[in-house]
Amino acid sequence: MKRAMFTTPQDAEAAFYEAFEKADLDAMMAVWADDDDIACVHPGGARVSGVAQVRESWRRVFAGGQALRFRLRQQQSLNGMTFAVHSVYEQISIACEAGARNPVITTNIYMRTENGWRMVVHHASPAPSSPDSEGKRAPKMLH
Amino acid sequence: MKRAMFTTPQDAEAAFYEAFEKADLDAMMAVWADDDDIACVHPGGARVSGVAQVRESWRRVFAGGQALRFRLRQQQSLNGMTFAVHSVYEQISIACEAGARNPVITTNIYMRTENGWRMVVHHASPAPSSPDSEGKRAPKMLH
Repeated sequence: MKRAMFTTPQDAEAAFYEAFEKADLDAMMAVWADDDDIACVHPGGARVSGVAQVRESWRRVFAGGQALRFRLRQQQSLNGMTFAVHSVYEQISIACEAGARNPVITTNIYMRTENGWRMVVHHASPAPSSPDSEGKRAPKMLH
Repeated sequence: MKRAMFTTPQDAEAAFYEAFEKADLDAMMAVWADDDDIACVHPGGARVSGVAQVRESWRRVFAGGQALRFRLRQQQSLNGMTFAVHSVYEQISIACEAGARNPVITTNIYMRTENGWRMVVHHASPAPSSPDSEGKRAPKMLH
């Protein structure tokens, strides 16, 4: 299988959201590191780990057949020589569906491998209704 | 203020959960890097960024006054020279409360700074009821 070589974390992230929008499983998995310790948390789901579980989780997500579009907001990053952490709000819209959905808060972590930059962690969770409320809300749970 | 110097990510993580259990705000903030780009997501909450917002979020969490106890399960880690990523299930119990709460899935990220290892990201989100369901559940949401 042809695998892309991502020379920056930004390239890997662009490929991740492109694969997500296209529901392209091979392209999605080409973004991930080939490592037992990769981890993925879909919103409301359990953590899945390792290539086989992560691939299966995306197969299920893509099986829904919905054409998603992502707009990334409030991007923050922490960059090292071999790791990069990107924190984003994903504003997701669905073709043929009116109205806005609640955004998703996502931590994407990339690692520089011998095959270029690859995703090692994707942790996504539902955000409160308005990202503009950032920093103004008290957490509703005890933690 | 006296600040601890953590020589490993594990030391920083131990101090994080100790400060959490003691609801000790100064000890909690001593674990975090002094950086505008630190980010914290409490379960169900918005992302807060930077020292002032992160501190305020913990002040609110601790203001609840509940004595929490943490048991960490299914720990995974990815380690680099300057970054460490820890993924854990937090099983939280409350003194004087019977019954188990749903676990929390947490991604903790540490960075090696000139002042030792410090936390830079804490992303926590509610997990499905049983961590044993890991990898066996289809995500309920489209993402």
